[in-house]
Amino acid sequence: MLKTAHRVGRDVAARRQDRGLRTREAILAWAVDLASADGLEGLTVGSLAEQLKMSKSGLFAHFGSKEELQLATVEKARLIFIEKVTKPAIGAPKGMPRLWAMVDHWLALVEKRVFRGGCFFSAASFEFDSRKGVVHDRIAEIMREWIEVLTRAVNEAQKAGHVDPKIDASRLAFEIHAIALGAHWAYQLLDDRRAYLRARMILLEKLRSIATSASPRLP
Amino acid sequence: MLKTAHRVGRDVAARRQDRGLRTREAILAWAVDLASADGLEGLTVGSLAEQLKMSKSGLFAHFGSKEELQLATVEKARLIFIEKVTKPAIGAPKGMPRLWAMVDHWLALVEKRVFRGGCFFSAASFEFDSRKGVVHDRIAEIMREWIEVLTRAVNEAQKAGHVDPKIDASRLAFEIHAIALGAHWAYQLLDDRRAYLRARMILLEKLRSIATSASPRLP
Repeated sequence: MLKTAHRVGRDVAARRQDRGLRTREAILAWAVDLASADGLEGLTVGSLAEQLKMSKSGLFAHFGSKEELQLATVEKARLIFIEKVTKPAIGAPKGMPRLWAMVDHWLALVEKRVFRGGCFFSAASFEFDSRKGVVHDRIAEIMREWIEVLTRAVNEAQKAGHVDPKIDASRLAFEIHAIALGAHWAYQLLDDRRAYLRARMILLEKLRSIATSASPRLP
Repeated sequence: MLKTAHRVGRDVAARRQDRGLRTREAILAWAVDLASADGLEGLTVGSLAEQLKMSKSGLFAHFGSKEELQLATVEKARLIFIEKVTKPAIGAPKGMPRLWAMVDHWLALVEKRVFRGGCFFSAASFEFDSRKGVVHDRIAEIMREWIEVLTRAVNEAQKAGHVDPKIDASRLAFEIHAIALGAHWAYQLLDDRRAYLRARMILLEKLRSIATSASPRLP
């Protein structure tokens, strides 16, 4: 009997923790969306509580400070990015198909308005690039990670014999990133509806120009 | 005598107005620098008064509201941009030399840290791209104007016979802008010291690939 009561108690605690985690995730999904439009600095426990119709103290139970909330929001955005871009792209065969899948899913992420305010990380980058502290450091770290993922995809495409081995992989990653950034900018600020089509055409042309005859055909 | 007194009075008023204008310009130069790092939303009459060791009421005499201060700051940044980029570039001969001068002066503006927080307009673009109102509208208008200046420089280079006439001028302007934006991002967020060298190499290679045999040599 004691053992059963103990087990029931444990289950209740686990369910509570589980519910707590789900609430936390729901709060963070909202926070990512809000920060993509209003910036991470606009993200206060107060404004978030108001929009989610929660008490401030309820929110504080999840995040002790504004900085903790900002950091948790950045981590959530990173997970969404991995889920929507990196993971599906890794499903494509190594080499040119995977490199193109990275680009394609990335552009689609912002084009489909997964984040209300455009690209979360572009906005966060320009908001925090002159600040100091843990939030800046984490954003810069995640962005370096993404540039490395792109660089590795170019390297793999070279090893697979799909891309000219003389190409500087890190420079190509810089170019791919810049063109996508330019598209996010034109789409979100200037409401340029052709921005993503244009970015795709520029990048397809670029990749075709460095593809070997062994490369699978690009779309 | 009356006439002289009147003239003296007019001179005093003119000097006061002149001093007022100079103060206004000095405040705005500071505001542009501050906003390039902390964002236009971080620009309050209070924070600016504190940093300039002026009274809030003294500042309010120049700018009636936060929005007026933001708008005046955007205009000041535009004038600095014209002074440092557009004007010197127009000094170069029409065609490929002028097109390259635009790119070169633009990259140098941010590389030389004219604005403490990197490119003022990149930061302002991503800060205001999801907002509504006159500040957003003015930033978008100035950015459209800059893209048009770049597009016109490409058109002129085509008319001068320096650039392949089949090139889509507005697409090339988009590419040039994107690569510069990517350099601002890498330099300011990731502290990538090669970012501007890389952007110059990418853009020189791009321009060489579309130059005709009649084009003056690029650097």
